[in-house]
Amino acid sequence: MTERLFNFGAGPAVLPLTVLEQMRDHLVALPGVGMSVLEISHRSAVFDEILATAEMNIRALAGISDDYHVLFLQGGATQQFAMVPMNLLSANGSADYVVTGSWAKKAATEAVKFGSVRIAATTEADNFSRVPGADEIDLDGDAAYVHLVSNNTIFGTEWSGMPDTGHVPLVVDASSNLFSRPLDVARHGLGLVYAGAQKNLGPAGVTLVIAHRDLVARASSSLPTMMRYVTFAESGSRYNTPPVFAIYVVSLVTSWLRAQGGLQVMSERNERKAGKLYAQIDASGFYHGTAAADCRSRMNVTFRLGTPDLDARFVVAAADAGLAGLRGHRSVGGQRASIYNAFPEQGVDALVSFMAEFERING
Amino acid sequence: MTERLFNFGAGPAVLPLTVLEQMRDHLVALPGVGMSVLEISHRSAVFDEILATAEMNIRALAGISDDYHVLFLQGGATQQFAMVPMNLLSANGSADYVVTGSWAKKAATEAVKFGSVRIAATTEADNFSRVPGADEIDLDGDAAYVHLVSNNTIFGTEWSGMPDTGHVPLVVDASSNLFSRPLDVARHGLGLVYAGAQKNLGPAGVTLVIAHRDLVARASSSLPTMMRYVTFAESGSRYNTPPVFAIYVVSLVTSWLRAQGGLQVMSERNERKAGKLYAQIDASGFYHGTAAADCRSRMNVTFRLGTPDLDARFVVAAADAGLAGLRGHRSVGGQRASIYNAFPEQGVDALVSFMAEFERING
Repeated sequence: MTERLFNFGAGPAVLPLTVLEQMRDHLVALPGVGMSVLEISHRSAVFDEILATAEMNIRALAGISDDYHVLFLQGGATQQFAMVPMNLLSANGSADYVVTGSWAKKAATEAVKFGSVRIAATTEADNFSRVPGADEIDLDGDAAYVHLVSNNTIFGTEWSGMPDTGHVPLVVDASSNLFSRPLDVARHGLGLVYAGAQKNLGPAGVTLVIAHRDLVARASSSLPTMMRYVTFAESGSRYNTPPVFAIYVVSLVTSWLRAQGGLQVMSERNERKAGKLYAQIDASGFYHGTAAADCRSRMNVTFRLGTPDLDARFVVAAADAGLAGLRGHRSVGGQRASIYNAFPEQGVDALVSFMAEFERING
Repeated sequence: MTERLFNFGAGPAVLPLTVLEQMRDHLVALPGVGMSVLEISHRSAVFDEILATAEMNIRALAGISDDYHVLFLQGGATQQFAMVPMNLLSANGSADYVVTGSWAKKAATEAVKFGSVRIAATTEADNFSRVPGADEIDLDGDAAYVHLVSNNTIFGTEWSGMPDTGHVPLVVDASSNLFSRPLDVARHGLGLVYAGAQKNLGPAGVTLVIAHRDLVARASSSLPTMMRYVTFAESGSRYNTPPVFAIYVVSLVTSWLRAQGGLQVMSERNERKAGKLYAQIDASGFYHGTAAADCRSRMNVTFRLGTPDLDARFVVAAADAGLAGLRGHRSVGGQRASIYNAFPEQGVDALVSFMAEFERING
C-alpha cells in the first residue's frame, strides 16, 4: 500500500481509512449492481438506499425528529450564506448575526444583499480570539433569525454551548464541528443547521442542511428554484441530479460514526485528542495558543511559536516528519492542527512527540 | 473482478473502465502525496495541477481561446437555468428561448422569474420529435441571448448544427452531447456553453461552464455571490471549496478523451455506434424510432415496440441479458439507449444482437 501521512488539513480533510478502503474495493462496480457508484442513476433503487441510509444515519446520530428536513445541497457553506437570508428573511424583516470570525463575517456581508442585517455581537476587536459571552449578545426579539458559526476554523475558537435566542430561530453554520459532539436539535429555537461536508462528514461537493419545516415553508416562489429549500424538501433532495458520489461517501462516513458508538463517543474522543495538544502547548512558554482558554476549539488547535521564523521552520520540519497541513490559514499565519472526527489519535500523539522534540532542539 | 453490466443509463452514465481503475488504484492515497484525492486541500499544489489539467484538456479538446473562461460550478444544468438569465438578462432586456424538449422548457420557465422571455421556436406540437428548421426560428435581433439545448435526452433529438444567431450571443445547454463531436467555440456569436458532467464528462456534482469574457462581465453585484459567473472567473473556480473529486474525475475523463484521439475521433465513433442501432431499428417494422430521421440523436437512441406490453417485456429481458438502463424516461416511456462517449461499442453490438433475437422470438 501507498504510505499515508497524518493530514492535519482544515478541509477538505482526512476521512476514515476503512471508509476509503470500502470505496476503493467497490469503486469499479458496486457488489451485485454491475456499475460503479459513479455511474448509477440518481433515480435507481441502489441510490434510493444510499440516500435513505445517509438520512437515517444523520437522524439517528443527532436524534432529529420529523419536524426537521434533512437535505443534501451543493455549493458549500458559501451558498448557504445567500440561501439563508433569501429563504428566511422577508423584505421588511431583519436578521441578527453574531460575528466570531472570517466565515461569520462573510455570512453577514452576503446577507446584506437580501435584507436588513444587525450585528448582535462581534469579537473582531479581540482579533476573533474568543466567542462572545451571553451578556455581550444584543438580540432583537423581532429578528427573523439569529445566525452564528459554531466553530471558527481559522481562529481556533468554538462555542461550548449555544446562546438562548428565545423564540427567535437559531441558524448555525456547523461546517467545522457538526457531529463532533451531540447536537441538541430538539432544543427550543433551533431552526436550521448547515455544513459543508468536507470536514467531518465526507468529501467536498455536498452540503448538509437540517431545517425545521416551518422555516422551509417561508421561501418565496420568485427565488431561483435551486436556491429554495422547499425545492429540496419536496423532492427528497432529487429535484435534479444530486452529487451521488458525495452523498454515498456521507452515507459511509455516517455509518462509520454510528459504528464508533455515536456522537457521545466521538465527543469524548475529540476532547481527549484536543486536550493532549492543548496540554503540550500549555506545558511550556515555547508554544502559544491563540484562542482564549475557555473558547478553544476541539477541532482546530491554533498556536504560534515565538517568531515567524520558528513558525516557518516548524511547519517544514513537521511535514518532513509526515505531519502534513499544519500551516495556519493564509489570513492569520502560525500553526493549525485540524483534528476532526476522522483524524486518528495516533496522529495527535505523533504531533505531541514532535512538538516536544522540536522544543528540545529549538527552545 | 466484479462483473460489469452494459449501462445504457441516461445519466449519471457509464465512465471509461480505465478511468475507474485509475481512480480505484489511487483512491486511498495519490502516489507521492500520502492522502486520498478526497482529502487534499483545494488550495494544495496537487489540486492546482488537477484543476489545471482539467482546464487544459478542455481547452485543447475544443480549441477554446483565452476569450472564454472555463469554469467549474455546482448545481447542475438546473442551476444554470437560473444563472444564465440572472447574469445575462438586464431588467429591461429580453431573451429568446428555443424549446425542443422538457429541459429546454424548464430553462425558459425558470428564466421568466428574472426577465422577459420570448419563445423563438417550439416543436412541442410535434411532441418534441424534432428540432426546428432555421426558417422556423423567429429571432429577436435585440435579444440579450438565444438559449437552446443541443441534444434532447428524453426525446432522442439533436441539433446537427447550430442556428446562426447573428450578433446575438448563443447560450447552449450541452449537458448531453458536449465533447461527443468537435465544438466550434470560435464560431461567431457563441456566448456560453454549459453542461452537467454526468453524461459525457464525469460524475454528477460538477457543472462545466465555457463562457465568453464579455458575458461574464455582465453580472450585477447584487446577485448571490455563488450565482455570479464572475465569482468563479476571478477565483479560478475556487472562491470556496470546489467539488474536488468530481473535478479530478473530469481531469481523468478529458485526458482519456485526448488519448482516444480527441473530438473528431469521438464523433466518428459515436456516429458509428448510433448508426448501428438506427440501422437495426429501420431494418424491420418491429422497432419504431421516435425521433424525426434528420434530427436523430447520436447520444440517446429512442424507440418503441408495437405495444406497451412488448416495451415492458423488452426492458426486462434486456436487463436479464446484462443490458441495463434501457427504460425510456418516465415522462415518455418506450426504450432509450444512451450511448455517450464512454459507452463501449461492444455494448452497442450486444444490444443489436439482442434486438434481432427479441424480434425473432416476438416478431
